[in-house]
Amino acid sequence: MAAPLIEADAVVIGAGPVGLFQVFQLGLLEVKTHVIDVLPYAGGQCVELYADKPIYDIPAVPVTTGSGLTESLLQQIGPFGAQMHFGRQVASVQRQDDSRIHLTTTSGQAFLTKALFIASGVGAFVARSLHVDGIAQFEGSQLHYRTPPVDSLSKRHVVIHGGSDAALECALQVLAPDNTHRPASVTLVHRRDVFVAEADTLARVQALRASGTLRFVAAQITGFEAADGVLKALQILDAEGKTRALPADQVLAFLGVSPKMGPIADWGLAMERKQLAVNTEDFGTNVPGIFAVGDINTYPGKKKLILCGFHEATLAAYGAMPFIFPEKKVMLQYTTTSPRLHALLGVQTPQKNA
Amino acid sequence: MAAPLIEADAVVIGAGPVGLFQVFQLGLLEVKTHVIDVLPYAGGQCVELYADKPIYDIPAVPVTTGSGLTESLLQQIGPFGAQMHFGRQVASVQRQDDSRIHLTTTSGQAFLTKALFIASGVGAFVARSLHVDGIAQFEGSQLHYRTPPVDSLSKRHVVIHGGSDAALECALQVLAPDNTHRPASVTLVHRRDVFVAEADTLARVQALRASGTLRFVAAQITGFEAADGVLKALQILDAEGKTRALPADQVLAFLGVSPKMGPIADWGLAMERKQLAVNTEDFGTNVPGIFAVGDINTYPGKKKLILCGFHEATLAAYGAMPFIFPEKKVMLQYTTTSPRLHALLGVQTPQKNA
Ligand SMILES: Cc1cc2nc3c(=O)[nH]c(=O)nc-3n(C[C@H](O)[C@H](O)[C@H](O)COP(=O)(O)OP(=O)(O)OC[C@H]3O[C@@H](n4cnc5c(N)ncnc54)[C@H](O)[C@@H]3O)c2cc1C
Ligand SMILES: Cc1cc2nc3c(=O)[nH]c(=O)nc-3n(C[C@H](O)[C@H](O)[C@H](O)COP(=O)(O)OP(=O)(O)OC[C@H]3O[C@@H](n4cnc5c(N)ncnc54)[C@H](O)[C@@H]3O)c2cc1C
Repeated sequence: MAAPLIEADAVVIGAGPVGLFQVFQLGLLEVKTHVIDVLPYAGGQCVELYADKPIYDIPAVPVTTGSGLTESLLQQIGPFGAQMHFGRQVASVQRQDDSRIHLTTTSGQAFLTKALFIASGVGAFVARSLHVDGIAQFEGSQLHYRTPPVDSLSKRHVVIHGGSDAALECALQVLAPDNTHRPASVTLVHRRDVFVAEADTLARVQALRASGTLRFVAAQITGFEAADGVLKALQILDAEGKTRALPADQVLAFLGVSPKMGPIADWGLAMERKQLAVNTEDFGTNVPGIFAVGDINTYPGKKKLILCGFHEATLAAYGAMPFIFPEKKVMLQYTTTSPRLHALLGVQTPQKNA
Repeated sequence: MAAPLIEADAVVIGAGPVGLFQVFQLGLLEVKTHVIDVLPYAGGQCVELYADKPIYDIPAVPVTTGSGLTESLLQQIGPFGAQMHFGRQVASVQRQDDSRIHLTTTSGQAFLTKALFIASGVGAFVARSLHVDGIAQFEGSQLHYRTPPVDSLSKRHVVIHGGSDAALECALQVLAPDNTHRPASVTLVHRRDVFVAEADTLARVQALRASGTLRFVAAQITGFEAADGVLKALQILDAEGKTRALPADQVLAFLGVSPKMGPIADWGLAMERKQLAVNTEDFGTNVPGIFAVGDINTYPGKKKLILCGFHEATLAAYGAMPFIFPEKKVMLQYTTTSPRLHALLGVQTPQKNA
């Protein structure tokens, strides 16, 4: 069942810092934007890889953090009301005969846009999958990479796999005192009895382990047992080198996210060393109407820095205007002085001095 | 008497926003910088033309002002201890046979640098001069565009010309109660009895006028009288259309600043429509070792925006490395993660998570 087609003036793939600033520059040019990101939130690498770490080279921002930067950008683009499509991965991109660009996401949503801005950075941040031969057949039914609705776990043997905050948070959620859909058992499986998590989360998990509500096994998952296409157990290799079976009706694996370039190479765009080749006049790719900005692009002199992406997004916005508003004469206006831009930004035009 | 030659790794012409960020990017690459600006302070257009006005398109800074932006940049470059040479206008630029670049300022200071970054924006902000035929001969002796030392005005007939804060501040300074070098007379000449100034300044000037200490004449300056090459009086045309002579030994004119491209066109650099032509790989000009960034440069797609200048300065810094440190292998490092950059910035390297 395909969702209805969304027709748009501009679509941005990627809600990293550069994709967000792309929204801003398009907004100043009066273009409404749709943004698609596979993550459930904005920020790209900044939030996924260094949310709390300081960053010092955003111009005129002596220090911020990955998440601080993202919040500032979200505030800045606020007036432009971009439509965010989170949790969706763009699968295909194709230019139509009418020169518009058709996109599909892995969840079946389709977009048709006059201009496309690929700000996909180092790739889509998708969950790392469990490397066990044949287990992928259970994905979505008995194998999950995020916490499924807790009622679907009722009276099941649940195995939670991973050593991160996300794995522990999942255990706490499934075993929450107010969850009336109790599983038959909950086992946490991780290579070693060492976790990367907030002290408070860890303490609450230890309490569940001490009370026997949560079992823990230090082991690797090496295989599985199934009958009639139904997963019954995992084969695990424990620290002493022994393999045994662990009953498993539902497996919830939290192995972190990793950026995946995905199918970009199949979109018919010129590439150089796995990056999209662009010109430096408007950061257009070889396909008219498709621009590439930020970490995903390459050109002579390219540096993978956020501030460079800001410049690229700006010139790309201007470069896209002939595709979006072919009739319009576009002029550079200053945010400081233009009453038109003030209206778009929802701010007061300052009074003239006496 | 020429000042001694200053030898440098990098000189930046212009302390506007882009020149300041040039210092930052060079600093991250361990290059010490000299900055030259004809103004007595940093900020370029932002401070000279819109210090108190809001600006909305600095990425990740939803709103600041011209002076707020400048202060943030000054704070950001603080760790790099650039040497600022204010109140100096660069007059000549010439590449030597040894490939270093020789600069002179109008005040006679000379620099010899391995790399030059021209961030001169819309030009040098120099004082507007008085348009009266032949009066330029008195410049520096009896005609000044800033307040000279007050003792040089002792027992003289002083004429202050202009309607700005600067003109009024000059009158207040010359007539300050603690100034023991009293002029013979002080007359303020302005087209109309209307001033653009702070309320407090205006009130203090009105008090001096009321007490008769400061005379005011609403008039235009149309000519002068001199004897033996010495200025004796100004010819002024008053509001009633009458011309008369006003005794004048010293004329202090405050007619605002206006950007002057000055002699850049004589520096042997390729130009296009009065801008310096650069490549987009490192924003180098046609002369090796000379880069141009910010409003002064042009290339296909150029937009005169501050955020574009930030990008240009970044790539120019990398482009200059072969001229400054020819032996060094330069690698992009992230300010977030590089202990080396943290040391340069004078900040702590964050602890690794457990
Ligand atoms: C540890 C670390 C420190 C860093 N420090 C600095 C620093 O100090 N200064 C600096 O300037 N830079 C730094 N960087 C680099 C900086 O984070 C990147 O340059 C920046 O994030 C690039 O932004 P972007 O918007 O191009 O892409 P990204 O931030 O990579 O965002 C791309 C987004 O697109 C999404 N996406 C990709 N493909 C698809 C698809 N097919 N469908 C849906 N969504 C998709 C991804 O999920 C992601 O959210 C650092 C990077 C790291 C890892
Ligand atoms: C009213 C107004 C509003 C604006 N609003 C915006 C906005 O909203 N967003 C935006 O991005 N941009 C805006 N701008 C443009 C922005 O201010 C410029 O892009 C920016 O200032 C360029 O910076 P720069 O460092 O290249 O040059 P400048 O700011 O022009 O600074 C150049 C400096 O070099 C000095 N200099 C030049 N020649 C010499 C010499 N020979 N010797 C010594 N010193 C010299 C000058 O005195 C000056 O201080 C606005 C401009 C104006 C006038």
